[in-house]
Amino acid sequence: LIDQTKLPAELITIKVKTVQQLREAIVSLKVRGAPLLGAAGAYGCALAAFGSTFDDPEMLLEELDLAGDSLRSARPTAVNLSWGVRRALSAAKGHNSVHAIREAVLEEAKRIAEEDVAINRTIGRLGSRLIESGDRILTHCNAGRLACVDYGTALGVIRSAVEEGKKVSVYACETRPLFQGSRLTSWELSEDGIPVTLICDSASGLLMRRGMVDKVIVGADRITRDAVFNKVGTYTHAVLARAHKIPFYVAAPISTFDLEHVEREVKIEERDPDEVRRAGDLTISPPFVRAYNPAFDATPMELVTAIITEEGIFRPPEMPRVL
Amino acid sequence: LIDQTKLPAELITIKVKTVQQLREAIVSLKVRGAPLLGAAGAYGCALAAFGSTFDDPEMLLEELDLAGDSLRSARPTAVNLSWGVRRALSAAKGHNSVHAIREAVLEEAKRIAEEDVAINRTIGRLGSRLIESGDRILTHCNAGRLACVDYGTALGVIRSAVEEGKKVSVYACETRPLFQGSRLTSWELSEDGIPVTLICDSASGLLMRRGMVDKVIVGADRITRDAVFNKVGTYTHAVLARAHKIPFYVAAPISTFDLEHVEREVKIEERDPDEVRRAGDLTISPPFVRAYNPAFDATPMELVTAIITEEGIFRPPEMPRVL
Repeated sequence: LIDQTKLPAELITIKVKTVQQLREAIVSLKVRGAPLLGAAGAYGCALAAFGSTFDDPEMLLEELDLAGDSLRSARPTAVNLSWGVRRALSAAKGHNSVHAIREAVLEEAKRIAEEDVAINRTIGRLGSRLIESGDRILTHCNAGRLACVDYGTALGVIRSAVEEGKKVSVYACETRPLFQGSRLTSWELSEDGIPVTLICDSASGLLMRRGMVDKVIVGADRITRDAVFNKVGTYTHAVLARAHKIPFYVAAPISTFDLEHVEREVKIEERDPDEVRRAGDLTISPPFVRAYNPAFDATPMELVTAIITEEGIFRPPEMPRVL
Repeated sequence: LIDQTKLPAELITIKVKTVQQLREAIVSLKVRGAPLLGAAGAYGCALAAFGSTFDDPEMLLEELDLAGDSLRSARPTAVNLSWGVRRALSAAKGHNSVHAIREAVLEEAKRIAEEDVAINRTIGRLGSRLIESGDRILTHCNAGRLACVDYGTALGVIRSAVEEGKKVSVYACETRPLFQGSRLTSWELSEDGIPVTLICDSASGLLMRRGMVDKVIVGADRITRDAVFNKVGTYTHAVLARAHKIPFYVAAPISTFDLEHVEREVKIEERDPDEVRRAGDLTISPPFVRAYNPAFDATPMELVTAIITEEGIFRPPEMPRVL
C-alpha cells in the first residue's frame, strides 16, 4: 500500500501482513478512500485466510467472519469497506477445503481491484459528458487515484475530460483536519499536469460568489436513498453550490450505495479531537480545549444535481436500477 | 503589544518603537483585529511624531502623512486601521509647535484606546439582549479581547450575556489558514471559563443541519452599505445560517463602517499563498502548487440579521444614524 499519510513529502509503500496491521493502516488513514477500502477489505479477508492455522473449513469461515467484523469497524461510515469484506466472505462460502477457501478469497480480492479500475474508467467516461471545456471545478477531499485502486472517481471524471481534450482547472479544498486536498489531490493532479489551485475550505463561498466555480464534483463514502455521506465539509459546499446555482455532482461506484438505510440511521464516525486541535505535529490550540471532529457529513439528495456511476448518470430521486 | 502569533503556546509582549516595526507587526499579524488596529494606527502616528527629527511643524505633518500611508497599506481591507490613522492625523493639525503636535497625537491615540474598551462594553450590553440562556453560538476568527484593546466585539456580546447569568456555549471555527479560532478564540474563552468547542471551518454546515447552532455572531473588518467584510469563511457561514434559518449577527464599532464605498469597490487583501500551502511550519502540499489566499470575504447585507454597534442594533438595510 502507498502510505498516504506520508504524501506529498514522501511516496513510500508499506507491506501489510496481518489483519491487525491492515486495520491499523485503515484507522490511521495510511490507506483511505471509499473504493480503495473496498479492495482493502477483501484483501484483508485474504490475509486472514492465509494467516489462519485452522485446517477445518468451518473453523476458518468463522475466523474470517471475525476478521471481517474487525475490518468493518475500522471505518464504520465507509460502506465500501463492508461491501469488500462481504464480497470476500461470500466467495469463501461453499468450499470444502481450507486451500479452496483461501484461493477463492484471494481471487475475489484481485477481481475487486481489477474491476475497480474498469469501473473508474467508466465513471470517468460517462461523467466527462457533464464537463465543458473551460470549466473550473471545485472538489473536496481526495476522490482520485489515491482513493481508488487507480484513476479515481471525482478526479477520474476530470482526468477523462482532460484526456478528451477539454480544458479544465480544479480548485482543491484543502480538507481540514487531515489535509487530503492539500496533500493528495493537489499532488496527484499536479503529477498529471492538470491545473490545480489549493484553497482553504471556507473560501469556497467567496469563490462561488465571485463566479469562479462552474461545477462541484466530489466522491462519496456512502449513498443512501436520501443522502450522500462524504468527507466533512461536503455538505457546506453543497449548500453554497445550491445558493449560487452551481451543479453539484457526486461520482461513485455502485458499491457505495446503501439503500437499506436512510440518513438518520447512519452513524457518522467521530475521530480523535486532536486532529482538530493540531495540524500534523503542530499544536494550534490550548491542549485541553474541547474539539468536535466528525469525519463525514450528510448532503441531502435535494442538493445533489446528479450521481455519476458506472451504470449511468442518475438525477435524484432517481436511483440506479441495478440496486 | 501581545504577539498574537505566539499564542496559545506563549503569552509574550513585544515593544514596538518605530513605524516600520509596527507596520511589520501588522503585516505579520502579531497585532491584528479590526478595533485593535484602529488604536494601533493612531499609536503608530504617535511613534512617527516622537521619532521625527524635524523641528518644523509643517515638515512634521508631512512626515506624519507619509507614516499614515505606510500604516494604512499594511492591511488595506481593514477600515479601522485607516480610521485610527485619520483620527490621529486630524488631531495633529492646527498646532504651531512640534511639541504640541506630538502631545495631540499621543492624546488622541490614548483616547481611541480608552474609548474602544467602553465601546466594546456597550456593544456587549446591547448585543446580549439578543442572546438567550442556552444558546449555542458559532463564531469565526477572533473578534474578542485580543482583537480589541479589551473585552471584544462578538466575544464581548458573549461575555456580557455570561456576566448577566445566561448559560451560553460557543463553537469556535478554527479559521484557516492562520487558526485565529484555535489559537486565540478558544484560548481567550477558556481563560474566562466560557464553554468552547473547536471545530473545523467546514463542519459548520453539519452542526447547523443537526440543530446544534442557535446563533452566529462574528466581528467585521469593514462594513459598507451593501456588505460586511470579515475573515474569509464568514460568507460561507452566513449562507449556511440563512439556509438553516439561524440568525446571523455582526458585532462591530461604528468605526468599522465605510459608507463611502460599496462591495465591488473594496479590494480584498490577498495574502501569501504559503499560508495555505503550509500550516505553521508544517508543509502540507507540494511546494510549487498554486494556492489562492484571500484574507477576507464579503457577506451581502441580505444575509445579515442585525449589526450590533455602540449606537444600537441595526437591522439592514437600516444603518446607524450617526454615519
